[in-house]
Amino acid sequence: MAIENGDFVRLNFTGKIKENDDVFDTTYEDVAKDAGIYVDEKTYKAIPIVVGGNHVLPAIEEAIEGLEAGDSKTIEIESEKAFGKRNAGLIQLIPMKEFKKQGMTPVPGMQISSNGQTGKILTVNGGRVKVDFNHELAGKDLVYDVEVVEVIEDDEEKIKSMIELHYPSPNMDLDKTVIDIDGNVVNIQLDEIAKFDQKPYMDITFARFAIAKDIWSNMDFDKVNFVDAFEKKDIEADNEEDEE
Amino acid sequence: MAIENGDFVRLNFTGKIKENDDVFDTTYEDVAKDAGIYVDEKTYKAIPIVVGGNHVLPAIEEAIEGLEAGDSKTIEIESEKAFGKRNAGLIQLIPMKEFKKQGMTPVPGMQISSNGQTGKILTVNGGRVKVDFNHELAGKDLVYDVEVVEVIEDDEEKIKSMIELHYPSPNMDLDKTVIDIDGNVVNIQLDEIAKFDQKPYMDITFARFAIAKDIWSNMDFDKVNFVDAFEKKDIEADNEEDEE
Repeated sequence: MAIENGDFVRLNFTGKIKENDDVFDTTYEDVAKDAGIYVDEKTYKAIPIVVGGNHVLPAIEEAIEGLEAGDSKTIEIESEKAFGKRNAGLIQLIPMKEFKKQGMTPVPGMQISSNGQTGKILTVNGGRVKVDFNHELAGKDLVYDVEVVEVIEDDEEKIKSMIELHYPSPNMDLDKTVIDIDGNVVNIQLDEIAKFDQKPYMDITFARFAIAKDIWSNMDFDKVNFVDAFEKKDIEADNEEDEE
Repeated sequence: MAIENGDFVRLNFTGKIKENDDVFDTTYEDVAKDAGIYVDEKTYKAIPIVVGGNHVLPAIEEAIEGLEAGDSKTIEIESEKAFGKRNAGLIQLIPMKEFKKQGMTPVPGMQISSNGQTGKILTVNGGRVKVDFNHELAGKDLVYDVEVVEVIEDDEEKIKSMIELHYPSPNMDLDKTVIDIDGNVVNIQLDEIAKFDQKPYMDITFARFAIAKDIWSNMDFDKVNFVDAFEKKDIEADNEEDEE
């Protein structure tokens, strides 16, 4: 069946800069290694998205509508529809003394952070340092090779795919996550390990909200409950095991 | 009805050191102010406990068995049944250079922390500092004036009292907490503000476990669910309000 807006799919992709074929992002481990952008902590596998959910560039989501599971497509995206045009106003001259204050020696090509923005040093001339705060891919036309690995049909798998996408706990086992559907309510009991997260509760709430929003926006449910259960019998069973 | 082990009660109390009548803890604001131990952040009001739940000294819990709501009692507790005898092994000599390393100048009476233990400097003699790591109340016989303000009978109020006792969010409104009892399962949906806690999720889990354990140990329930709900209609209602 042709993919429509609102469908849950798994994609593999490789994103390249059109002018030089440089790979800047990919879900394939071998491609990442070949391109020299492999990161040890990252898991390389097809990512779940909702078509129209703004999980990848909207131009990609539009382009896969009409495809089917197993299809591949090469998508060209002009800079305006990717990371925007370059904005000359985002190139700033910063006095050298600001760098000295922080014990930094600016060098062209160096990445810096300032007020939560990331910039790249272009030139260092006497007392002035020219820094480009444009997105690294601003002004670049892109080419994406996209492969639709799977169209997710099952409700429980759709829900789990959004947990996989949004929940910030890489060690969590989705096979130990229990989804219970009750009319228009989804009850989610995550893998027990999720209870022992060191992250602030608020961060977890934002992730849960993102999951809930993708569910109620694209499926026939109105309410998503995240349930942390504490059972008497668990404890007693544990104690009995200890005593053996 | 006479108070029994397992009952949920609210207590006011004032704890004093027997030998000098010094007040070291109290639930009464005026008593705290008179004794010079008033703390701005603390809420002075009767605290909920389960009799036998180890929420206050076991000797206090035993002493209130048989009392009724409104009763008061003065309880003498020997040091062995309060904070234990003083242990000479917990008085340690620490080389002065350990203090210098951390830029500290030890003075008798100063409180210090070392490896998670709190101690009080007794003497400073040449190169050696004598520190007492005994509990401040170790070796002291205590006198508690206890008032049983209320015996909590209602199941929902019992559950809320344990949330009040254990949950580490002073801003949470218990009137906005929804308790839903379904057979032997208690579903707790906390005040919405609880979702935006900055504390690590794990700390919240430990508090929830303490609440659940007190519930299933002292009430006829086997399972306690903490439910974080995310509802589609909430968002739509909010948007409509914004548009007005």
